[in-house]
Amino acid sequence: MPSSFADRLAEAVRRLGSPVVVGLDPRWEELPEALRSRRGNNYESKAAAYGIFCREVIDVVAPLVPAVKPQAAFFEELGPPGMTALAEVIAHAHARGLLVIVDGKRNDIGSTATAYARGYLGRGQSAWNADALTVSPYLGDDSLVPFVDVAHERGAGLFVLVKTSNPGGGMLQDIVSDGQPLYRRVAEHVEQLAAGAAGDCGYGSIGAVVGATYPAQLAELRAAMPHAWLLVPGYGSQGGTAADVAGGFDEGGLGAIVNNSRGILFAYRRPEYAERFGAVRWQAAAEAATLDMIAQLRAETRAGRLGQA
Amino acid sequence: MPSSFADRLAEAVRRLGSPVVVGLDPRWEELPEALRSRRGNNYESKAAAYGIFCREVIDVVAPLVPAVKPQAAFFEELGPPGMTALAEVIAHAHARGLLVIVDGKRNDIGSTATAYARGYLGRGQSAWNADALTVSPYLGDDSLVPFVDVAHERGAGLFVLVKTSNPGGGMLQDIVSDGQPLYRRVAEHVEQLAAGAAGDCGYGSIGAVVGATYPAQLAELRAAMPHAWLLVPGYGSQGGTAADVAGGFDEGGLGAIVNNSRGILFAYRRPEYAERFGAVRWQAAAEAATLDMIAQLRAETRAGRLGQA
Repeated sequence: MPSSFADRLAEAVRRLGSPVVVGLDPRWEELPEALRSRRGNNYESKAAAYGIFCREVIDVVAPLVPAVKPQAAFFEELGPPGMTALAEVIAHAHARGLLVIVDGKRNDIGSTATAYARGYLGRGQSAWNADALTVSPYLGDDSLVPFVDVAHERGAGLFVLVKTSNPGGGMLQDIVSDGQPLYRRVAEHVEQLAAGAAGDCGYGSIGAVVGATYPAQLAELRAAMPHAWLLVPGYGSQGGTAADVAGGFDEGGLGAIVNNSRGILFAYRRPEYAERFGAVRWQAAAEAATLDMIAQLRAETRAGRLGQA
Repeated sequence: MPSSFADRLAEAVRRLGSPVVVGLDPRWEELPEALRSRRGNNYESKAAAYGIFCREVIDVVAPLVPAVKPQAAFFEELGPPGMTALAEVIAHAHARGLLVIVDGKRNDIGSTATAYARGYLGRGQSAWNADALTVSPYLGDDSLVPFVDVAHERGAGLFVLVKTSNPGGGMLQDIVSDGQPLYRRVAEHVEQLAAGAAGDCGYGSIGAVVGATYPAQLAELRAAMPHAWLLVPGYGSQGGTAADVAGGFDEGGLGAIVNNSRGILFAYRRPEYAERFGAVRWQAAAEAATLDMIAQLRAETRAGRLGQA
């Protein structure tokens, strides 16, 4: 196994010819009826259902994608039982050969940031065993140092929020000062961190979150951060298309991983899959949606140039 | 019990004549030897020690302060057992009559933000039962809406990061655009949210985090956000003094709560308390440090004008 997160990610993306990340966002109201109806409505029961649901998703997508991205919020919503389910889901993803990016958007200062970093980063080296974690930059460069140090020390990765996919993200991220939007400053900082420790694949383990819903900025940020992996949310239910994310890939088809959560997890509720599969075959619907997304990215982006084993 | 977080906080601050928040940041290396030595070194044992430590701190500070602020990072560092300890610590603080501000600096977009808000906010109404939560604004105004809505619905509170206490906070927070630093924009947004739903005490339940280490900005932000409670970190071990936080209080001595974590929790290691109490009487040292901090704030700030029961 390559020692840096960046190289492990590149290896998996190339091997599978797939830059897709499946976001594990269990949402109680959208879970297949069979998983909801056989259980009570308390936190423990819901957490158990989330665990089963995510493990079953992992089982179908593991041969197809390099990584899953559990969204901490949905597990945290259930309190301690949810956190236990999160840990189990991470372990199951690893057992199935997947990289795990914990989406926690954590940040704090000094030794508190170190506690987050030590707690999350590093498979077999931390309580949560994440291969990578999303972090927020609002507290500034010194708040990122402990995360970067621990990531490098443990061969783990980070994705720093740069340009998020939501409409209101621009409130702070687009503020222009000295002719430069704020997100570009964050991007320059991320590029420095990434370039300082680039792996064999050409990318470093400090990456950036850039939303699929801003295609022009995605291409701009691909150019501004030539050493940073981009984690691209906003595909599918948020409106981002394969054409929208095309600008995120480099010439060889590497450099971006595109997340889809609801569009895959709850594909059985989407018109294009509902009739073919129905709620009972929700796993098959998730698998089909993953395959369709991979095909779309291969057809409409440079991800089509990725070699396949 | 008043229905808004802002009014409950004002009632407690006035009743006790104390604007002090005790930050619950258990750090393994700094725990009293007796708590470390009788246990193993695994996550479960450490989490159990954190639980005992925080409950014993709570027992001595509960008659003296309105609120405690558990720092999620230190509990998360220990994985699921740490999260169970966090839930127990919150329950114990409530049993002792304290308000609980969970310091998680959470943020996300849309329904993910809603999951965080529903999971954390509201005593007896959420898995974590927090009276208030710290949140980050990097994702913009729409990312705060779900937190604000749930807070209002449940009589809970928020503290939005505005100007943090660390040296590097200025990297983004001090960026000037149209003659205004970024933190002022965030402050204006917080003031709007706070003013829109101010309670009987004159303050709303949407407050701001403003560090003690920037006294001039603290006074500036007190004026800019007349309806927002300020949660002031950075006192004590980060260098902030009573004089530094003076600008955070309004004419009547309300409006700011000042956090101290290490300076109280680990007072037994500080020269001024070590000899008097020693490691064995670490609880008495924490109590003395709390009383000293209250006395300093009463002597050197308008908190001295708070009525006492």
